[in-house]
Amino acid sequence: MKLYFAGSIRGGRADAALYARLIAHLKESHTVLTEHVGAPSAFPTVEKGMTDHDIWAQDMAWLRESDAVIAECSTPSLGMGYELAMAQQLGKPVYIFFDVRRGWLSAMLTGDPYYRIHPYESEEALFHAVDAALETI
Amino acid sequence: MKLYFAGSIRGGRADAALYARLIAHLKESHTVLTEHVGAPSAFPTVEKGMTDHDIWAQDMAWLRESDAVIAECSTPSLGMGYELAMAQQLGKPVYIFFDVRRGWLSAMLTGDPYYRIHPYESEEALFHAVDAALETI
Repeated sequence: MKLYFAGSIRGGRADAALYARLIAHLKESHTVLTEHVGAPSAFPTVEKGMTDHDIWAQDMAWLRESDAVIAECSTPSLGMGYELAMAQQLGKPVYIFFDVRRGWLSAMLTGDPYYRIHPYESEEALFHAVDAALETI
Repeated sequence: MKLYFAGSIRGGRADAALYARLIAHLKESHTVLTEHVGAPSAFPTVEKGMTDHDIWAQDMAWLRESDAVIAECSTPSLGMGYELAMAQQLGKPVYIFFDVRRGWLSAMLTGDPYYRIHPYESEEALFHAVDAALETI
């Protein structure tokens, strides 16, 4: 499958290494369209000389092309919230993962019956939950 | 006009007092449907005993009822990103304000030509920009 992996970029890069490990895991069995989200650089797309409009247009094209969205939501991000709502409009299956030890997920996500929400308490549990979710698509 | 004011709740309450001052200013001339966003409590809706589904259903009803969305985006928030994308789907005018001294706004917002983006560098400038935006609706 083609997966759109969503994580925080400008909202904060505290989880960039976690995103990279999760993307590497997903790539063992699938194509990840948004591999740059796990790059060690703070703003990987900006550093490639892309304008904000270029980044938006590319991400929306990848979102339309994807078979499903995998979102790691432990770091709050405006862009990720936008992507998850747009994914819903496009009818894409959306799987949301967040570390319950780090805080609360927005009620706009947990309260919307469209999303499949997976709280986790360890990285091992996250990987298991992602694998189980992908088997249901 | 009926305004939907958007700010961060679970994404972080660092700007709650700013939201309250901005909501008080908006209320001098308009109706603010989401006044609770400026409440001093951390999670104003949850403290009222509402479930996440109740919160989502109420916020979506207010979004549909609103004439325009005023969003203060300096604190990143998943719920706010979701609301801004949903507001676009509903065809609501969306005015986004953010303090440029605090960081970068998501390229999903700055890169999407739908939104009217207003960076500001002082609270006085924010209030002027909000008043100017409201005159264009």
